[in-house]
Amino acid sequence: MSAASESTGYLSFESRLKAMLMVEEALARALAQSGVISEEQATAVAEACQADSYDADVLERKGAKAGTPVIPLVRALIANAHSISESASRFVHLGATSQDILDTATVLQLKNAISRISDCLVCIESTFASRVKDNANTPVLGRTLLQAGPPISFGLKLAGWAAAARRARIRIEQAARTSLCLQFGGAVGNLSSLGSAGMDVAQNLANELDLPLPQAPWHTHRDALVNLASSAGILVGSLGKIARDISLHTQGEIAELREPSVSGKGGSSAMPHKRNPVGCMRILAAANRSPALVSSLLSAMPQEHERGLGGWQSEWPSLRDLFSLALEASSEMAEIAQGLEIDSERMRANLDTTNEVVFSERLSTALLPRFGRIEAQERVAELVRQSIEQNRKLSLVAAEDPEVRSVLDSEALDSVFNVFEALGFSSVFIDRLLDAAET
Amino acid sequence: MSAASESTGYLSFESRLKAMLMVEEALARALAQSGVISEEQATAVAEACQADSYDADVLERKGAKAGTPVIPLVRALIANAHSISESASRFVHLGATSQDILDTATVLQLKNAISRISDCLVCIESTFASRVKDNANTPVLGRTLLQAGPPISFGLKLAGWAAAARRARIRIEQAARTSLCLQFGGAVGNLSSLGSAGMDVAQNLANELDLPLPQAPWHTHRDALVNLASSAGILVGSLGKIARDISLHTQGEIAELREPSVSGKGGSSAMPHKRNPVGCMRILAAANRSPALVSSLLSAMPQEHERGLGGWQSEWPSLRDLFSLALEASSEMAEIAQGLEIDSERMRANLDTTNEVVFSERLSTALLPRFGRIEAQERVAELVRQSIEQNRKLSLVAAEDPEVRSVLDSEALDSVFNVFEALGFSSVFIDRLLDAAET
Amino acid sequence: MSAASESTGYLSFESRLKAMLMVEEALARALAQSGVISEEQATAVAEACQADSYDADVLERKGAKAGTPVIPLVRALIANAHSISESASRFVHLGATSQDILDTATVLQLKNAISRISDCLVCIESTFASRVKDNANTPVLGRTLLQAGPPISFGLKLAGWAAAARRARIRIEQAARTSLCLQFGGAVGNLSSLGSAGMDVAQNLANELDLPLPQAPWHTHRDALVNLASSAGILVGSLGKIARDISLHTQGEIAELREPSVSGKGGSSAMPHKRNPVGCMRILAAANRSPALVSSLLSAMPQEHERGLGGWQSEWPSLRDLFSLALEASSEMAEIAQGLEIDSERMRANLDTTNEVVFSERLSTALLPRFGRIEAQERVAELVRQSIEQNRKLSLVAAEDPEVRSVLDSEALDSVFNVFEALGFSSVFIDRLLDAAET
Amino acid sequence: MSAASESTGYLSFESRLKAMLMVEEALARALAQSGVISEEQATAVAEACQADSYDADVLERKGAKAGTPVIPLVRALIANAHSISESASRFVHLGATSQDILDTATVLQLKNAISRISDCLVCIESTFASRVKDNANTPVLGRTLLQAGPPISFGLKLAGWAAAARRARIRIEQAARTSLCLQFGGAVGNLSSLGSAGMDVAQNLANELDLPLPQAPWHTHRDALVNLASSAGILVGSLGKIARDISLHTQGEIAELREPSVSGKGGSSAMPHKRNPVGCMRILAAANRSPALVSSLLSAMPQEHERGLGGWQSEWPSLRDLFSLALEASSEMAEIAQGLEIDSERMRANLDTTNEVVFSERLSTALLPRFGRIEAQERVAELVRQSIEQNRKLSLVAAEDPEVRSVLDSEALDSVFNVFEALGFSSVFIDRLLDAAET
Repeated sequence: MSAASESTGYLSFESRLKAMLMVEEALARALAQSGVISEEQATAVAEACQADSYDADVLERKGAKAGTPVIPLVRALIANAHSISESASRFVHLGATSQDILDTATVLQLKNAISRISDCLVCIESTFASRVKDNANTPVLGRTLLQAGPPISFGLKLAGWAAAARRARIRIEQAARTSLCLQFGGAVGNLSSLGSAGMDVAQNLANELDLPLPQAPWHTHRDALVNLASSAGILVGSLGKIARDISLHTQGEIAELREPSVSGKGGSSAMPHKRNPVGCMRILAAANRSPALVSSLLSAMPQEHERGLGGWQSEWPSLRDLFSLALEASSEMAEIAQGLEIDSERMRANLDTTNEVVFSERLSTALLPRFGRIEAQERVAELVRQSIEQNRKLSLVAAEDPEVRSVLDSEALDSVFNVFEALGFSSVFIDRLLDAAET
Repeated sequence: MSAASESTGYLSFESRLKAMLMVEEALARALAQSGVISEEQATAVAEACQADSYDADVLERKGAKAGTPVIPLVRALIANAHSISESASRFVHLGATSQDILDTATVLQLKNAISRISDCLVCIESTFASRVKDNANTPVLGRTLLQAGPPISFGLKLAGWAAAARRARIRIEQAARTSLCLQFGGAVGNLSSLGSAGMDVAQNLANELDLPLPQAPWHTHRDALVNLASSAGILVGSLGKIARDISLHTQGEIAELREPSVSGKGGSSAMPHKRNPVGCMRILAAANRSPALVSSLLSAMPQEHERGLGGWQSEWPSLRDLFSLALEASSEMAEIAQGLEIDSERMRANLDTTNEVVFSERLSTALLPRFGRIEAQERVAELVRQSIEQNRKLSLVAAEDPEVRSVLDSEALDSVFNVFEALGFSSVFIDRLLDAAET
Repeated sequence: MSAASESTGYLSFESRLKAMLMVEEALARALAQSGVISEEQATAVAEACQADSYDADVLERKGAKAGTPVIPLVRALIANAHSISESASRFVHLGATSQDILDTATVLQLKNAISRISDCLVCIESTFASRVKDNANTPVLGRTLLQAGPPISFGLKLAGWAAAARRARIRIEQAARTSLCLQFGGAVGNLSSLGSAGMDVAQNLANELDLPLPQAPWHTHRDALVNLASSAGILVGSLGKIARDISLHTQGEIAELREPSVSGKGGSSAMPHKRNPVGCMRILAAANRSPALVSSLLSAMPQEHERGLGGWQSEWPSLRDLFSLALEASSEMAEIAQGLEIDSERMRANLDTTNEVVFSERLSTALLPRFGRIEAQERVAELVRQSIEQNRKLSLVAAEDPEVRSVLDSEALDSVFNVFEALGFSSVFIDRLLDAAET
Repeated sequence: MSAASESTGYLSFESRLKAMLMVEEALARALAQSGVISEEQATAVAEACQADSYDADVLERKGAKAGTPVIPLVRALIANAHSISESASRFVHLGATSQDILDTATVLQLKNAISRISDCLVCIESTFASRVKDNANTPVLGRTLLQAGPPISFGLKLAGWAAAARRARIRIEQAARTSLCLQFGGAVGNLSSLGSAGMDVAQNLANELDLPLPQAPWHTHRDALVNLASSAGILVGSLGKIARDISLHTQGEIAELREPSVSGKGGSSAMPHKRNPVGCMRILAAANRSPALVSSLLSAMPQEHERGLGGWQSEWPSLRDLFSLALEASSEMAEIAQGLEIDSERMRANLDTTNEVVFSERLSTALLPRFGRIEAQERVAELVRQSIEQNRKLSLVAAEDPEVRSVLDSEALDSVFNVFEALGFSSVFIDRLLDAAET
């Protein structure tokens, strides 16, 4: 199943309808466990809750008009239950308010989506991590402000990507643990309409749905949910960072990386020679949309009194789109990671093309104990100018400069221009980044 | 058709598919008019462009993978054309790039949606305007920072709402005129692949689709489109302002307005006595989502070179949702405007409950030529305190104050506390607001 | 110090300059501890790092032009150090890149701001919690979609606010622990310019500044920082929810709460009788601005390679404003909490004004075992209609209805309309919300 | 003056204070013209309105507490006026509400800022336009999805940038004309406190300030202002697009453009060889921040009744930052435009490096009348593969292919691979883009 249809799958109105029915069914069972209704009645309601008895399109349309799909759904559910057991039908939805059903359905849908997102992130992390070792000593130009800088270890770059995927996963899983809990409070959140059975029903309902019972209903306190949404937004942002890097590496003039070749993907309708970074494109498109979705959810937080007017109702489309994007971006990045083509020779060639001017910081640092920062930088800037004008390696130009030679002997100069020494503490950072992955 | 399904109608993938096929068909006709292909070939392609030959779901899924639905669509279109005329099939999509088809399809979809939005705004404006006259002398509490202030004319409030709808309509129509134009530039925007016929084909294509020809392709210059989107966002914001006002007026303790009663709308799943302001709720929900959608489109503007990577591709979902919300909000507000229940007696009762303390600004202004602002306010504040403590009208308390009487005689005092004088230049402003509507 | 100037204090450019100098000083000390420079040199640099030697305005202006204030600062710092010790001046800034200094300065500034925010949140939580007990049995109208619903316990509402403040505090403190760590990686993040001493210097620098050492430099991996920013945005949103509630309760027609009276605050330049909810106003203004600031930070996440072009540089103003708003909102809410005037009599009066129609859900639930949901709701809706028409309490109307009486005896009816029974599990939820506060 | 301090200049609190005093002074003169106060009194108030009599820092701090700076300002102004003329001091601020002063001050500040922004945009447009002619026949790789495509005219790219600057200027100037008008309505927007003189004073005040008189006060109808803000956001987005392009062209491996070299700008604290695209960086940073600021203003639109609680108060910081960014980005881009280094030889070299595979679309289009799109693309894809493998020009490979030769003779093949023919209608588009500039 493609990423697109998959995300639709978890967060579609069809799955929403199923989740709502699952909550209504669990509520009937919980009411029976608490002795409010009979087992037979619960069974009849459960039977009436089979999703294929409901027309999702009709309910979606009526729900838009009514302000919530729960109103037409409960009406349809009562009718269905009535045809099975008149007495059971009287207790459908007992003790619940529309928001109880919708919020808990949201929680169930997000739980499924996040489980799949987690799997993708595990894959991204382990795939990038598995390629670190081979590339730990692969030098590639470091690039700051889109300009060439000293070389870095491509393995460290991979390890950084792996660790970002891990942090994203841990963050969303932690947020899920505190936010994905039952919503059940009745009309104004104090469970009053079930009399003394209220808390017992709530606990049974939580058990039925395998969800934690919160300290209290959270009808207009949305902080935990928005925190979960933020973690999804940050996740997409982190994948966006990786996609930005990869797409820049795949530019024709740079050509250090290529997205995997996948049939039906990345072709151009006008230009047959192209292999477009379509995976990165989709992830970057996701990274462009998700910040605004998070901001919409934050904007909706100041909800009025016991049920918000507009704020609450605006949440679901943003949540749906945000987690769809998170799922899509994770799934695309997992695919990219698994087939990413790394051209270490080209990396070296691009580095060599610079004639070593990217070692200028190392050279000026080496000269600094004698000249101080400013003079050292000025001297090196002059040598760089010569190197560019003469199209010669900076090491050669530097070796001919008497002032440089008065400070640095041949060995010292070799060290300055040694590409592997220039990788610094890359291997230490790699270990720290990947070890953390194991804890 | 309900607001929800209607907005889906204009901006659904089905309508998008139809619009794309309309562009491909028009392109074939334009190529024939320019003599690039024969009339027969154009007719064959046009025949192949009938929307019911295509499976929207399949194309949407394949398109997500390919990075654009145009790639699988053109493939299917060629196959269909081939079965009608092999020679015609060779020229399908000639000279176009995917973005030409998609952007022009977007333009066609938005044109339809905006036409419907305009109709709703005309209705909102004329409906509110039609009720101004009866309410021009209806005093209602002015409320600033959610606190009671001097009375205002409810007619002026209505005229303000009408004028806001008018400005929103004029703004979106103007933006549409400059932004809704043809996109046709080929792979990199210079029409090079059609040889010398390029501009002629472009002009014919524009004519076929009844769209203006832009100065140049706008593949990565999105300013006009984003300006149109902004006008939609502002429109929703203005309707949100009206919905905010109405919803606050409908609070039980205030009860000056009621949303129209519509079957299947505004009931509560738990509380039978309620008549919820569901129309306002949906408009406020729209007003909560639309700012972020506009920001997403603004964020996508810095698109790379001749076709953006991620930015362009992120636009459509935001445009679709934004114009759906604009359509939904306009449609809901038209419904509210037409059935809004205005309780002018309750407005008067709420005003009377304040014991005239809301006339304190008028009183202090009247005292100001004698005492200056600060002393006048302090004196009035003291009188207000007495009025509240004694639960007596401020005019009575003021009339007993010697300092007040030394400045204001009975007639002057009557004038200060005359509710109709307090309406100030309301009728002038009403005329200015509504006259403008006629220009 | 007022909230406004206080937030300026923590996050101003002056405090930023101090923080940058603190990092440069700590770097010199760390270099000495690692044996890279002498103790004397470190002491000289430290001496040159006294903030009053620098002109903040000049550095801010030059920094804007240079692209970062670190460039002119380091230049000025070298000049100052040179006048103390020529040899020391050579080693200023050794091993660091501009981003190391700026990011670590950001971390130090945020640490201070968050410490103050935490204090305010502790105050908000404990203040609201301290008033729960007295209000646990204070009934107030529950309000859903801005319409009156069944009564709730005002104590539970207070406990909900207290718990929201607690969660906000815990969330930002946790986020701070993982995000507020050292940034030190040199030009491209591998610490290569310090040779073998790099990691040792990094650890010493972390110790000097009392900051954790991260797994690796995070120059373009901003997830932890953005997560911290999100937690600030959520915090403001939660306070916005409380401010929204309070401001609605303070409307003149409702008048159940009043903001504390503070001199110089809440007056109107035109209307002397007003006491404006200025604290709520400022918090709601903050809640309006913060979502967009979070979204800006999320948008900036896909930063290029080893140092972003535009993304990174856009972060600071958003962080500064966001944490200023968080500080301001927390400080304002602490002030409101401490002086909030609660009018429980007015709450009761507003409840009584409804003639008990807000008990309709309880009544229909009581009738539901006999009639089922739909019929019960219809019967109750009819009774509510009579109650409103006759302006009589719903309990009286219901008591006269034979069908109702056939199900509910007098005791049962009394129970339905008992306002304290209607509070449901409020006391249980209060205990759960406040107990959690202690863990 | 640098861009940074300049933007501070127009939109600082100091300039805000001046603008507020200018409004108060103009109000006094208008009151005199309408005969409400005497000329002498007006002169005294005007004298009291000299900005250097006020401590901006103190007023800013007190204003934050009071909820608006107008309250402490009016108090100080009265005191100052009192020392000049007791009688004059009584009439300070007469008829106005705080929001009248603040909104009109905002309008005056924005008017100045926009005038300066317009100047910069004129400069950007004319500077880019002036370089079009020399580059109209300069081929450069077209790049779509960051991959090489067929060549384009660099002159057309420049013309596109020039036209974008022009549209941005026209849009913001048009928006300014409808939005930058007087705000004057008194406490609740009906001018009631000035008695019959109200409209006359309003018109005189508008004349004094050289601002249009709106149809009615717009205290809570913010659509025109938000439209102006949107136009600023779009402007920054358009400049962001240009900056994105330039920054990508300046990458070391591409090196087709260089930002101008400006002293004190673009250096690196660690890497002396670098010339960083600091102008682009600042513009891209602006383009990252501005979308969220626009969204904040859109979010604030649903303002309550006659004066919003939170929404209105949140506007100014967003407006200030947005127009500062617009000014900064315009000013930076003007500087870049004037000194942009264009390396047409490198453009040609980069194009040549592709071995003509970027002509593949032209080739497949030429083959299409014979083979149809799909087969033509497959054949060309095969030839491209050979070209890459053999490292030979595509034209040479194609010339040896019998199928190709059966369709295209030498002349036709030459035409396909003629780089100048590949520029298509560039010159036509250039004329259209630049001609429009003159209207």
